[in-house]
Amino acid sequence: MSLFITFEGPEGSGKSTQIGLLATALGEAQRVLVTREPGGTRIGNAIRSLVLDPAHTEMSPRAETLLFNAARAQIVDEIIRPALARGEIVLCDRYADSTLAYQGFGHGQPLGPLRQLAAYATAELTPDLTIFLDIDVVAGLARKRAGAVEEWNRMEEKALAFHENVRRGYLTLAEQSSRWLVIDATLPAATIHQQIMAQVHQRINQGADDEAGNGHYQQ
Amino acid sequence: MSLFITFEGPEGSGKSTQIGLLATALGEAQRVLVTREPGGTRIGNAIRSLVLDPAHTEMSPRAETLLFNAARAQIVDEIIRPALARGEIVLCDRYADSTLAYQGFGHGQPLGPLRQLAAYATAELTPDLTIFLDIDVVAGLARKRAGAVEEWNRMEEKALAFHENVRRGYLTLAEQSSRWLVIDATLPAATIHQQIMAQVHQRINQGADDEAGNGHYQQ
Repeated sequence: MSLFITFEGPEGSGKSTQIGLLATALGEAQRVLVTREPGGTRIGNAIRSLVLDPAHTEMSPRAETLLFNAARAQIVDEIIRPALARGEIVLCDRYADSTLAYQGFGHGQPLGPLRQLAAYATAELTPDLTIFLDIDVVAGLARKRAGAVEEWNRMEEKALAFHENVRRGYLTLAEQSSRWLVIDATLPAATIHQQIMAQVHQRINQGADDEAGNGHYQQ
Repeated sequence: MSLFITFEGPEGSGKSTQIGLLATALGEAQRVLVTREPGGTRIGNAIRSLVLDPAHTEMSPRAETLLFNAARAQIVDEIIRPALARGEIVLCDRYADSTLAYQGFGHGQPLGPLRQLAAYATAELTPDLTIFLDIDVVAGLARKRAGAVEEWNRMEEKALAFHENVRRGYLTLAEQSSRWLVIDATLPAATIHQQIMAQVHQRINQGADDEAGNGHYQQ
């Protein structure tokens, strides 16, 4: 049975570890596709190069958001939907919620138009399950730097406030829909994996009860 | 006084001629900026190359639409808004209505999401005046080919139906808002220019009566 699972969370939250553990566990029984934007699509890679080119300092924030969403539309149509149609489980490292969290809650773009944009880019393909690996911002940055937290200068305080808005954004989104699972990312990796497996099995059982094929389009 | 005027119409409708005549006429009295997407912006050009690359046959239609709109967001922020803020008249060859006409009415994408996308890309910058140079599809294609209409094979009939849907789309849009001026593109160029000048002067006088600065954000 196909299942579409997305992972959200900052760097240092252990997303890659958990995606790897889940893919390995599920992969015994069925085909699992692991992807992340731009997903190895040729067009997605071209868009990514364009967005990340450090020379493009004049880029409009809305142009950037639209480019991210163009890459998303491409990966949805070229990679994710075909895999789901083949009955595979798709694990995606970040998805449309990242735009809401970073461009919306983080950079202060209004949420309404960003939601419409994400709905258009994904053609309303909504995950069955979204796992948010939640970690205190300072603890997460410390982990990422693999050391003690340095003193924050003014620039870093701005960055800190931004990441705290992003985190608050994810937690707000998670309260609004039952497709979210929020996990304390400071727990041992094995414990987190168990919590994820429990939820995934529950969703698989739910899906088996539902009519086939409609699950991915519901919020 | 700043004024934002867009031109729509198929190839062969005489858009370039009319833009040139209008820019020359208005340019005596004040600064006129003439532009078209991607407007010579570096980012717009990079996006354009990506969209038009003939190797990208796998491009998702929604990715393409999002890329067009990313280039539009860039030209709005980098070129059009600054020019209007300097009090210039901006003439733009095609704008957000092209997306509604071609991707919406032509290719059958739903209009609601396309309108939301255009509103986001333009940050709701709406033209003061949109001039649609209307021409019968067959007559327009004949003009473009500068000769008699050849017999249509099946492929050409499909193209004909597409262009007729696009034309019908423009006429539908024009009925919905007073910012449109529809002109019979088969009239002599001088006559069309007179009709355009009459409308432009009317809008300039209207604008002078309105409060400054708000005109561009209204439908």
